[in-house]
Amino acid sequence: MIILGIDPGIAIVGYGVIEAVKGNFRVLDYGVITTPKEESTPVRLKMIEESLSKLIDRYQPENISIEELFFATNAKTAITVAEARGVILLTAITKCGRLYEYTPLQIKQAITGYGKADKKQVQQMVRILLKLKEIPKPDDAADALAVALTHAQTNRMSSLFEI
Amino acid sequence: MIILGIDPGIAIVGYGVIEAVKGNFRVLDYGVITTPKEESTPVRLKMIEESLSKLIDRYQPENISIEELFFATNAKTAITVAEARGVILLTAITKCGRLYEYTPLQIKQAITGYGKADKKQVQQMVRILLKLKEIPKPDDAADALAVALTHAQTNRMSSLFEI
Repeated sequence: MIILGIDPGIAIVGYGVIEAVKGNFRVLDYGVITTPKEESTPVRLKMIEESLSKLIDRYQPENISIEELFFATNAKTAITVAEARGVILLTAITKCGRLYEYTPLQIKQAITGYGKADKKQVQQMVRILLKLKEIPKPDDAADALAVALTHAQTNRMSSLFEI
Repeated sequence: MIILGIDPGIAIVGYGVIEAVKGNFRVLDYGVITTPKEESTPVRLKMIEESLSKLIDRYQPENISIEELFFATNAKTAITVAEARGVILLTAITKCGRLYEYTPLQIKQAITGYGKADKKQVQQMVRILLKLKEIPKPDDAADALAVALTHAQTNRMSSLFEI
């Protein structure tokens, strides 16, 4: 199963594409979509939609897994990030249809087994689970791989109970 | 010039379509797009995108005018409304390209000439400017007509300085 993980944002959207086969995980791609802050919000939203659409066309993920927004201290930033997240949700549902959301707590628990794990611990586990030599860079890409892995782990657990 | 005004939301999106000719305004349509709260956010966003696309196809507005988000006291609601607003901005820029944003203060000033006008005063002026017998209902549709009129008024003022 191919899973696309997304760490939403307006300036930087992290993405990670993994293939999960019988509890083994393999990285297909990861990186970031960036938008210039000089552009207006609608133009940046359009850029995100176009880049994300191309990514979905290229990898044809069966599932898309996206991090739920936590509330930034800066309300203005939170609003713009939420606008970007709306566009990402729309693009994902339009082009893939199978969309799952995970909170930061769920991600930490699924990846490290510990809800209070710090960012570095999550990144180390991402590296180990995906058999990578280095922690994926930048952080947004590592976070996107973490949410893709969270879906793979959660899905695997629930499939144990399927007939 | 045909202007589509939009009052963004997740449960209710207000819209108002007006035609502005030499300082005269005429209503072409107004109403609301609603989404059921039982549905998931991505599905609701998709519904908004589809309904708004149809509206733009039908009226082919030259300009789209949208209210800027002010921050609700409920952060969770603000995030979801911002997600819907992101989808509305994307749809508007994709299908029309000419998109203008106005704050609640700008709307009050453009419609009533007074930044501290209350909702009722704005609605009364919308009724008068559009030569309607009654205040348009529901409030979301009246708000959308107000933001369409704001663009018409602002645009008219700036065109006075054009050669």
